[in-house]
Amino acid sequence: MKLVCTQSDLSTNLSLTSRAVPSRPTHPVLANVLLQADAETNQVSLTAFDLSLGIRTSFSAEVLHSGEIAIPAKLLNDITTRLPEGEITLENESTSTDDPLAGEGSIVTLIPKSGRYQVRAMGAQEFPELPVIENTPALHIPAGALIEGLRGSLFATSADETKQVLTGVHLTVQQDTLEFAATDGHRLAVVQTTNESPDTNTETGLEVTVPARALRELERMLAHAHSEEEPVALYFDQGQVIFEWQNQRLTSRTLEGQYPAYRLLIPRQFERELVLDRRQFLSALERIAVFADQKNNVVKVSMDSEEQEITISCEAQDVGNGRESMSAQILGEDIDIAFNIKYLMEGLKALPSVEIHVQLNGNLTPVIFTPVGGFKMTYLAMPVQLRN
Amino acid sequence: MKLVCTQSDLSTNLSLTSRAVPSRPTHPVLANVLLQADAETNQVSLTAFDLSLGIRTSFSAEVLHSGEIAIPAKLLNDITTRLPEGEITLENESTSTDDPLAGEGSIVTLIPKSGRYQVRAMGAQEFPELPVIENTPALHIPAGALIEGLRGSLFATSADETKQVLTGVHLTVQQDTLEFAATDGHRLAVVQTTNESPDTNTETGLEVTVPARALRELERMLAHAHSEEEPVALYFDQGQVIFEWQNQRLTSRTLEGQYPAYRLLIPRQFERELVLDRRQFLSALERIAVFADQKNNVVKVSMDSEEQEITISCEAQDVGNGRESMSAQILGEDIDIAFNIKYLMEGLKALPSVEIHVQLNGNLTPVIFTPVGGFKMTYLAMPVQLRN
Repeated sequence: MKLVCTQSDLSTNLSLTSRAVPSRPTHPVLANVLLQADAETNQVSLTAFDLSLGIRTSFSAEVLHSGEIAIPAKLLNDITTRLPEGEITLENESTSTDDPLAGEGSIVTLIPKSGRYQVRAMGAQEFPELPVIENTPALHIPAGALIEGLRGSLFATSADETKQVLTGVHLTVQQDTLEFAATDGHRLAVVQTTNESPDTNTETGLEVTVPARALRELERMLAHAHSEEEPVALYFDQGQVIFEWQNQRLTSRTLEGQYPAYRLLIPRQFERELVLDRRQFLSALERIAVFADQKNNVVKVSMDSEEQEITISCEAQDVGNGRESMSAQILGEDIDIAFNIKYLMEGLKALPSVEIHVQLNGNLTPVIFTPVGGFKMTYLAMPVQLRN
Repeated sequence: MKLVCTQSDLSTNLSLTSRAVPSRPTHPVLANVLLQADAETNQVSLTAFDLSLGIRTSFSAEVLHSGEIAIPAKLLNDITTRLPEGEITLENESTSTDDPLAGEGSIVTLIPKSGRYQVRAMGAQEFPELPVIENTPALHIPAGALIEGLRGSLFATSADETKQVLTGVHLTVQQDTLEFAATDGHRLAVVQTTNESPDTNTETGLEVTVPARALRELERMLAHAHSEEEPVALYFDQGQVIFEWQNQRLTSRTLEGQYPAYRLLIPRQFERELVLDRRQFLSALERIAVFADQKNNVVKVSMDSEEQEITISCEAQDVGNGRESMSAQILGEDIDIAFNIKYLMEGLKALPSVEIHVQLNGNLTPVIFTPVGGFKMTYLAMPVQLRN
């Protein structure tokens, strides 16, 4: 194998794929990145796979001899990022991929403008195949819509690995939408993105739960997409999901288990409604959080419909207290309601609008936050018992 | 006590003083910042003191009633940094400082533009006095020279608390210079800053060792000084040192024990001399470090006087190897010499010039690095045994 590429192409693609390299590999070959060079197409692809999350990216290079080899990912990445801009020659002795021992125990040599680096590599044949999904039509979603869906749901997943299916985002394919849902049992975030070019042959009602870890990598990779209009192809299958665009592909196993019937949690009628400024509410909460941190994170929100304002307060015994008021459009009777301030703040951060709509019934039933504007997001937070 | 100040003045000064608040205070009052407000001068001062390092800063405010009180530093800082810009009123009930119980168990109220915060505070009389040094003439050093001295020495102090005196920087007052020295036993950094306006009555030959922690805070505070010309007054005493400028003061205890006679370690004659580009050397070392990390951090530097170049290399068994060559002006016979790559890189980062001068004798005797140019800095690194 022999190829010449630029430092920036190699470095950018290595840092993207390296995210799928496990920090404690169960098998030595998984600590590697699989490099495949094709002299016919002059394309180089890099693949990393931890047996759950897989990332493959490819880029153009001058490929003099085809070949494939598994190179220690961290070492190659550490050297490449430190090299100056310019061309790099990458080669190993064996140039034939027919030889079953090609690359086995061999040395890969990197020759940048100055210097020479050699890294002990492994045979490509030991590297596991990335999963493929065949005979399933793709769903196409613009990169921007996918990013919005991830941004509005990922934060609400559970970080507790024992909660299984709650550590993922639940995706539901509808006729002309893709719905994202995430809950950790205390709050729920649901985003509906519009699929503007619906595939007539896409199976609707299809549901999968994808690990948050894979979707965080997807979010990071999409941030580098050429444009928000870039279509991303989604392939769903039992146990596996694939996202593919341009020269990049991310595969992930799906989470097993029944996802909660979250749509039933969202009330349909409300006794009270508020409209208020999201940023003003959030920055007041950030200050009150200094006291709430000392007191189980509980914050009290009091509605005053006569003054058309809400008061946010926290009394932390032996430490101090804080209160702030802000104007709000209020419909319904006055009420005091308590929240875990972290859930309130995280939801407000993810809502994409200037003003938000808050809908509630009593002070122990679900409270719904939605953006004022076209974006379809629903955030549900459960109030907590008001002590004092 | 009652005062009105701006959010930015309070926040900036709190974040400077808070650095001297111990994370695990030995006495509850040390978790506080002492706030003193003087209605006559309209000045507010903030003091924090962990019994070793003390920081006091002051700023102008509208002081309506004089008073002093000890306020929980973290809480006050956390609230203040989150407040929007604008005026803040700070008050507590007691306005008399003659009352011995003033502020004891009292409440401080912060009233920003919107909202109201109350914090439980402690009496000022419990807060320990900052050390003072009387009847000792000050030494005056421009802020810029002090920053240069700290930047060129602090990195070479030992992080090992059992090494006592080596965890500090040794300061020596000379007729018209202040000398900074730091060593951890493996390398040594010495900087001489010129005192351009020597005080004729300053005692010369005075030596103290100041804890690195205090000097790091000094460096941080000086970065906010109005100009590099700003004179900083230094007061030295047995056991205590004080740095004072504008409205800021930093006090620190000094470290006890005999500092090593480091000047004797620097050879006066050399068999070999090199001049080379500092950045080029450093960036080659950063790449070779990827392999040296796998091999006791040892890097080999080989001189080739015929080619007028040096080669930097590392062979990490079972992993790989790297080598780079760069041009250098070389005087003396060829030699191979090995270093701990971290000590080499840290020294090169601290040297302030484009080109550096390297002087050595054999491959197991001290190697001296100096900047080419006016700046007076000496960096000494001990080579390590060359294995292979």
